[in-house]
Amino acid sequence: MKDVAIIMGSISDLKTMEKTIETLEQLEVSYEVKVISAHRMPQEMLDFAIGAAANHFKVIIAGAGGAAHLPGMIASSTILPVIGVPVKSSTLNGIDSLLSIVQMPSGVPVATVAIGDAGATNAAILATKICALENEQYAINLIDYQNRMHDKSVESGKNLE
Amino acid sequence: MKDVAIIMGSISDLKTMEKTIETLEQLEVSYEVKVISAHRMPQEMLDFAIGAAANHFKVIIAGAGGAAHLPGMIASSTILPVIGVPVKSSTLNGIDSLLSIVQMPSGVPVATVAIGDAGATNAAILATKICALENEQYAINLIDYQNRMHDKSVESGKNLE
Amino acid sequence: MKDVAIIMGSISDLKTMEKTIETLEQLEVSYEVKVISAHRMPQEMLDFAIGAAANHFKVIIAGAGGAAHLPGMIASSTILPVIGVPVKSSTLNGIDSLLSIVQMPSGVPVATVAIGDAGATNAAILATKICALENEQYAINLIDYQNRMHDKSVESGKNLE
Amino acid sequence: MKDVAIIMGSISDLKTMEKTIETLEQLEVSYEVKVISAHRMPQEMLDFAIGAAANHFKVIIAGAGGAAHLPGMIASSTILPVIGVPVKSSTLNGIDSLLSIVQMPSGVPVATVAIGDAGATNAAILATKICALENEQYAINLIDYQNRMHDKSVESGKNLE
Amino acid sequence: MKDVAIIMGSISDLKTMEKTIETLEQLEVSYEVKVISAHRMPQEMLDFAIGAAANHFKVIIAGAGGAAHLPGMIASSTILPVIGVPVKSSTLNGIDSLLSIVQMPSGVPVATVAIGDAGATNAAILATKICALENEQYAINLIDYQNRMHDKSVESGKNLE
Amino acid sequence: MKDVAIIMGSISDLKTMEKTIETLEQLEVSYEVKVISAHRMPQEMLDFAIGAAANHFKVIIAGAGGAAHLPGMIASSTILPVIGVPVKSSTLNGIDSLLSIVQMPSGVPVATVAIGDAGATNAAILATKICALENEQYAINLIDYQNRMHDKSVESGKNLE
Amino acid sequence: MKDVAIIMGSISDLKTMEKTIETLEQLEVSYEVKVISAHRMPQEMLDFAIGAAANHFKVIIAGAGGAAHLPGMIASSTILPVIGVPVKSSTLNGIDSLLSIVQMPSGVPVATVAIGDAGATNAAILATKICALENEQYAINLIDYQNRMHDKSVESGKNLE
Amino acid sequence: MKDVAIIMGSISDLKTMEKTIETLEQLEVSYEVKVISAHRMPQEMLDFAIGAAANHFKVIIAGAGGAAHLPGMIASSTILPVIGVPVKSSTLNGIDSLLSIVQMPSGVPVATVAIGDAGATNAAILATKICALENEQYAINLIDYQNRMHDKSVESGKNLE
Repeated sequence: MKDVAIIMGSISDLKTMEKTIETLEQLEVSYEVKVISAHRMPQEMLDFAIGAAANHFKVIIAGAGGAAHLPGMIASSTILPVIGVPVKSSTLNGIDSLLSIVQMPSGVPVATVAIGDAGATNAAILATKICALENEQYAINLIDYQNRMHDKSVESGKNLE
Repeated sequence: MKDVAIIMGSISDLKTMEKTIETLEQLEVSYEVKVISAHRMPQEMLDFAIGAAANHFKVIIAGAGGAAHLPGMIASSTILPVIGVPVKSSTLNGIDSLLSIVQMPSGVPVATVAIGDAGATNAAILATKICALENEQYAINLIDYQNRMHDKSVESGKNLE
Repeated sequence: MKDVAIIMGSISDLKTMEKTIETLEQLEVSYEVKVISAHRMPQEMLDFAIGAAANHFKVIIAGAGGAAHLPGMIASSTILPVIGVPVKSSTLNGIDSLLSIVQMPSGVPVATVAIGDAGATNAAILATKICALENEQYAINLIDYQNRMHDKSVESGKNLE
Repeated sequence: MKDVAIIMGSISDLKTMEKTIETLEQLEVSYEVKVISAHRMPQEMLDFAIGAAANHFKVIIAGAGGAAHLPGMIASSTILPVIGVPVKSSTLNGIDSLLSIVQMPSGVPVATVAIGDAGATNAAILATKICALENEQYAINLIDYQNRMHDKSVESGKNLE
Repeated sequence: MKDVAIIMGSISDLKTMEKTIETLEQLEVSYEVKVISAHRMPQEMLDFAIGAAANHFKVIIAGAGGAAHLPGMIASSTILPVIGVPVKSSTLNGIDSLLSIVQMPSGVPVATVAIGDAGATNAAILATKICALENEQYAINLIDYQNRMHDKSVESGKNLE
Repeated sequence: MKDVAIIMGSISDLKTMEKTIETLEQLEVSYEVKVISAHRMPQEMLDFAIGAAANHFKVIIAGAGGAAHLPGMIASSTILPVIGVPVKSSTLNGIDSLLSIVQMPSGVPVATVAIGDAGATNAAILATKICALENEQYAINLIDYQNRMHDKSVESGKNLE
Repeated sequence: MKDVAIIMGSISDLKTMEKTIETLEQLEVSYEVKVISAHRMPQEMLDFAIGAAANHFKVIIAGAGGAAHLPGMIASSTILPVIGVPVKSSTLNGIDSLLSIVQMPSGVPVATVAIGDAGATNAAILATKICALENEQYAINLIDYQNRMHDKSVESGKNLE
Repeated sequence: MKDVAIIMGSISDLKTMEKTIETLEQLEVSYEVKVISAHRMPQEMLDFAIGAAANHFKVIIAGAGGAAHLPGMIASSTILPVIGVPVKSSTLNGIDSLLSIVQMPSGVPVATVAIGDAGATNAAILATKICALENEQYAINLIDYQNRMHDKSVESGKNLE
């Protein structure tokens, strides 16, 4: 039983989604990774979404680019929170990915994060924040993570002064 | 047996999609209209798309706004040509609808037309152009339509000179 | 003890954020509402964020427009998940609000939803999805909500056919 | 007699339009390729469009960039369906190409696909979908193509799990 | 023999192009007005452009909206300078009109002015500036116009001080 | 006495404006080149504009990037037609240059061409079109240029067929 | 001797710039208001800028819309700090005004504030912050203003809880 | 006691902010540099802002990218003028940084400069302009700087003529 499912629309999204994987590793959160294309595997996609809660996932992270339908379609078929990562697209820098993911109609939210690597990292942290509501170890890991981040920021400016 | 299926993501899209209906009426092309929400009726949506060719539709016109996933998801599950109408959204004037529909990944095209009323009218004409490839009556109706359009344009400027 | 804190940057955001309130009411989720301006009440804002977990909130929903710093600043000071609602701005239709909220740097995610009313409604549903992970009643309410939404969509198209 | 005419506004568009050619080759659809510049060969362009149906083409694919007038002008003078490929422009990433092609006025549709390579590939598939309405072999080829695409997507994710 | 030809893609553009007419009247420059739709009257359009120089026009002003192909197509078939007026479009505020007109490829310039009323006024002034190179009366009229404009600006601020 | 004045806001714009120079050379139109910065040499700029007509220039071409004020300010102080070339900017791809040049207020037109190299080339052609109104040799050169362009386009596609 | 000069490109900008006037009144800062059009009164504009320091102004606030050249041109000819207010334009919502004002080249800064009313108000506050560096009364007035703003924000949310 | 505080949200912004440092060095203005992350060091950020006036700073320059909250949050807690530098972001070219910094609500201005290097340079000049109001040496340095800039511009064009 894993807490987080990471899915991506295409294996080419892995370069971005590796940030999600790395960050969940650092936060010691259990996860599973899959390629599920909204447009090439639509029925598998719905089946995955419908079964996700029963499979004991707590959060689904979906990364996709361009006309990025994967996060929204997953969100349509599960009561689990779905986090959408807009992958930077080759032509429009991910503004198409962002709008396709965030502008969901009333009733079907996708928790959208920033375009590209920062978003992929943040998807992992957001998923951990959600899981940490009932998992004290995750909460401790998060606080540690935030403290390290804080200290690194402080440290990084030392030489300037 | 109808040639064209018109579907829309929400009944609120009808105001726009009525232009499609009116134009198909003028062109005397047979059609059927349905509300199928990608996000509220995802399984019905896929089932419709999968069955559309067997139900003797030739072209599917799908109108949707915002994170407009309907046309692309329909296109993922049929070999019929799918025409996407970006409905003008309340916040971003339909630029989100346009990008969500047109920026489809390699392998799954949506024939995208203009945002809003012009696009809804043009979806009907495009569908008729496609059906007219094997339907002489439709071709005649189209030529008539284009001629009337031409004459109306010519006429409209008469008073200026 | 309330599960959801709704905060907004200005009382003028209430027109949008009422959708959040209404939806939480429909989903029977407990909540509290506050005006906390990032720019006019910065210390109160940080204090609220720092104390939110200890005050037993599970999720914070923050709505703001323009250079919308509230959601991101709240997220900087809590391990709770923060949902950001980009309020439609008077000059740029909320594209400024959206980018100011969603484009957070690595380490500090904001779960961003759509601009305006749809986003405000969806913030409530997303918060409920998160709380429902450990609250069966909320899960039941959500499923009911999704079913009603589904049925209403189906119903809305009946007259067209 | 070829089913598809591929035209492009400039030989510099060939780098993009080669994706259209390759895909039609894979789908075993007959085609012809031409350079016809809307702005440098306007009369040839109209003559081509006017004669296209009599020359037994079924679909015209037109690729162009910047102030991309070719697809729309071709569409003005034929009853054949015209597919427009927005070529990525050097300054504005193809957003100018996209808007110049898709925002056609009422009466003259262009079936617009994505900017750049994905769009060029999809133009070929869309053309094939249209021709397949009355060509069973094309329909079989398309289904094969979609199946291979599906299997490749499934396969691509195997190593991740 | 008129110096300036004003053409517009649709009679609905007249509301904007009236500013051009009014301004040419004020500047006492001779002109003619026509509706010539690029998409509904393509051959008439080319014929007009090809004959314009022989018809003793000096400058052509072309107004159009959306996928605004008229100015560029006219420019393709004449050695006369062509001024393009981007008419404000109903969905995208004329940004589509602007890009469709201004982003012309190497070899075929359109002298583009501002979107909407200001542009329509300025098209008239620009045409007059061009004609004034060999018409002293026009030069005098222009200088008068600029002086009145200057004085009106000065005057308008008097009450503030 | 030169017919065309080419001015640019910074020597760094020369890379783009060389296209203007090359094209005027090809068209055998006389010209002069200067660096005049709107922001670093404002008084020289106005003086140049005020004197340009008396100095027998017929057309002024002004290239600038970013907050590109040069073309508009020149236009404010001369009755000569001014052509503006939006130089591609390092951060926003020239969309800032384009809007700063084209969106001139009522009364002070700038004849704006495309962003970057295509625009720089077209500025030269547009200037020649204007000068050709009273210079038969220029008209002949232009027709030659257009014919060569036409033939090159035709030729470029020969190998494809 | 006034501390702040408020100038605007057109009397039509007064509707926005009244916010600047009102706010300076509230802050009890001395000011003068003028209409100086960059494009209709270019020499007066430069003369004003050149003389501003000698006239004992400390800060210049310049509001303009569209291709808004006034703030940047003023900044080119004074060592005083210049604040630019992008007035909301009729076609592009002020995004053209913003980019024309903020994207100044190296060497000539304009202190740009938000588009429209908020920006006009903030220009006054920013000017006061600058003047307050050497004017204790202004500093006191500012602190009062900020306190009232803080208290009003706090007060505005009281009824919600 | 330094006149200018330069802060940046991340050490990765240093590459841009070095332009600010270099320019202040050239203008011989005293300054201090710090990394203070709005999102990783929120309390230190507020404390810095609250204490800045007492620490005898006259102007604060804050550089940040993406959802750039640092300048606005600093401005919320000081009566000193705050200059915001939008750092070019990796995905959206700094348009997100610009809007997050400039679109501040009524009451809390940030003096925003251009995106990237030009903005970083200009922030230094703007700060000097402000400090020069009461520091004659700075005024002299500024005039020298502007004169050198002017002469360099003039010089740069010499070879062209």
